[in-house]
Amino acid sequence: KTYRIAVIPGDGIGKEVVPAAIEVLNKAAQLDGSFQFEWTTFPWGCDYYLETGKMMPDNGIEILKGYDQIFLGAVGMPDLVPDHISLWGLLIKIRREMKQSINVRPAKLLQGLPSPLRNPNGFDFVVVRENSEGEYAESGGRIHSGQDEVAIQNAIFTRKGTERAMRYAFEMAKNRRQHVTSATKSNGITYSMPFWDEVFAQVGKDYEDIGQVSNHIDALAAFLVMKPENFDVIVASNLFGDILTDLGGAIMGSIGIAPAANLNIERQYPSMFEPVHGSAPDIAGQGIANPLGQIWTGKMMLDFLGYHEVGTKVLNAMEVTLAQGIKTGDLGGKATLRDVTDAVLHHLQ
Amino acid sequence: KTYRIAVIPGDGIGKEVVPAAIEVLNKAAQLDGSFQFEWTTFPWGCDYYLETGKMMPDNGIEILKGYDQIFLGAVGMPDLVPDHISLWGLLIKIRREMKQSINVRPAKLLQGLPSPLRNPNGFDFVVVRENSEGEYAESGGRIHSGQDEVAIQNAIFTRKGTERAMRYAFEMAKNRRQHVTSATKSNGITYSMPFWDEVFAQVGKDYEDIGQVSNHIDALAAFLVMKPENFDVIVASNLFGDILTDLGGAIMGSIGIAPAANLNIERQYPSMFEPVHGSAPDIAGQGIANPLGQIWTGKMMLDFLGYHEVGTKVLNAMEVTLAQGIKTGDLGGKATLRDVTDAVLHHLQ
Ligand SMILES: CC(C)[C@H](C(=O)O)[C@@H](O)C(=O)O
Ligand SMILES: CC(C)[C@H](C(=O)O)[C@@H](O)C(=O)O
Repeated sequence: KTYRIAVIPGDGIGKEVVPAAIEVLNKAAQLDGSFQFEWTTFPWGCDYYLETGKMMPDNGIEILKGYDQIFLGAVGMPDLVPDHISLWGLLIKIRREMKQSINVRPAKLLQGLPSPLRNPNGFDFVVVRENSEGEYAESGGRIHSGQDEVAIQNAIFTRKGTERAMRYAFEMAKNRRQHVTSATKSNGITYSMPFWDEVFAQVGKDYEDIGQVSNHIDALAAFLVMKPENFDVIVASNLFGDILTDLGGAIMGSIGIAPAANLNIERQYPSMFEPVHGSAPDIAGQGIANPLGQIWTGKMMLDFLGYHEVGTKVLNAMEVTLAQGIKTGDLGGKATLRDVTDAVLHHLQ
Repeated sequence: KTYRIAVIPGDGIGKEVVPAAIEVLNKAAQLDGSFQFEWTTFPWGCDYYLETGKMMPDNGIEILKGYDQIFLGAVGMPDLVPDHISLWGLLIKIRREMKQSINVRPAKLLQGLPSPLRNPNGFDFVVVRENSEGEYAESGGRIHSGQDEVAIQNAIFTRKGTERAMRYAFEMAKNRRQHVTSATKSNGITYSMPFWDEVFAQVGKDYEDIGQVSNHIDALAAFLVMKPENFDVIVASNLFGDILTDLGGAIMGSIGIAPAANLNIERQYPSMFEPVHGSAPDIAGQGIANPLGQIWTGKMMLDFLGYHEVGTKVLNAMEVTLAQGIKTGDLGGKATLRDVTDAVLHHLQ
């Protein structure tokens, strides 16, 4: 079987880590033997914008729909292109138009990875982030100017979107450690979050065997630092999921390692696999970026396509590489992107 | 000079830690010699609600206006009284009606306090949180029911409220390490946060000697775990400030230690001094709660009244106590609330 993958390296280190991860994914496919990838690269991103005035062509979404999945690096060059143009013109546009309404982001203490926590206690959790609405609704406005100016932002939570994320979280917990934590803030935010809690309680009734608890986002953020091992699956709104997953990256030892998948769980359009980290323009082009976030993101694509066995092998190869001390600068090491990629390729067997 | 302080121990451990902190504050006043406190205790909170159906009497706000400051413990007994009643009927009501529009919350690596971070590197930052509007605006609603239900929450940012928090942060930075970080999320939240950024840029022009930078809340949360020593003053919206300050408590070693002040900076009404931690019903009444958050909160009241010298002595006494290993269970010790209070009193000189 051949999977046709649309590749968008994007900006900054995206252009370096994506090719590295593709090498690893090709080797994984070879190892499995039952499938292969066919990669088609699109040069969309900030350079493309500076040339054409657009982050992607007008028919970009249509083009992407012709592929099985999307493998993306990073988007953004804030010094050259304002974020609202680069992100909303490419990254968020794809998430929305492809109805990738679930964002899955695992955090796991990896062997050989120096967590900034003193006693990280083998944590292993997944954040299921609602990815299409909530606090990121493009709804709001302003009134008056000068000293009287007022800005209003509407967060919009639909029953369908909220419930979809929660069901996905409960289903995922079935195959994990049977526990779901809901990130709320209903003690301070009095319309959207009580609604969120109600839906969680209702959906939870269909999963009586799964442990379920709600934590306020402030306490939950603190818990991720104090006892991350207590969490299994966390379900969160768009904004809360965004915050918790960067924290997940931080306690793993580096944002550079955290993977993510933007899923169209109905499989009606392609999903997009894109690490948590950004384009890191400060270290781009030097061959020193950490490819592990992108590689792990590739493993999530393998999982989504059903190749769990070889996916696990990719993660193992990453762990052996780390345990051997072959680490890029963000992890306190001296290895280059090439060194790390070669080591992962070597250990992938 | 005599300061008349309204005391609201509130619920759970509030009833234990407040009297302990009052002992320390009385000793501090004695030590200084130029002022004293006169404490009047109000039994408002969830017990009061269960008896009277109200969290405080109808004229509660009027009563409080007759005092110089308010010293509060903790509010909430979620098993008995829903949070939206207990918090909005007392804590948030006071914050709003007394126009305590700035919430100040320091986080500092204390001697003898075991941070969960491996290399906490002597961090010392303060979060200035907008405390009256933003994401906590009681504005929103719902439409339709069942599968079609939609909940909308309006976050409302006024120029005045936003600017006030930012100016306060810049003024504070003048007497600290001359650096302000603004917590934003304008790459994902497209109406309120770009407005927030604009106001920050404009206010920043009046403080050209102060370093100024914006970080997205997701990255900022991660930075607090990875390099908390990089921050001096952080200015944040109501919600972001809430999250960052619980994180501040976590990296200090315990939420139980984090202090806070809800300030009416115009000094038109009393300010309210209230620690970050909650009522912790699970450990209430056992004499094992950590009083240091409340004591440190008392130090913030001393500072606000202008008694910086004796305020610093209180913090020093806390640090000596911790360095001697006299710690409650939340900090991994075996000391009781009484032990810790006695040690702080002993070292306060
Ligand atoms: C109890 C809750 C409403 C409150 C808040 O979010 O403001 C608390 O978390 C705090 O930080 O004081
Ligand atoms: C770039 C930004 C809009 C984005 C988000 O907040 O969704 C990023 O932080 C992420 O987590 O993928």
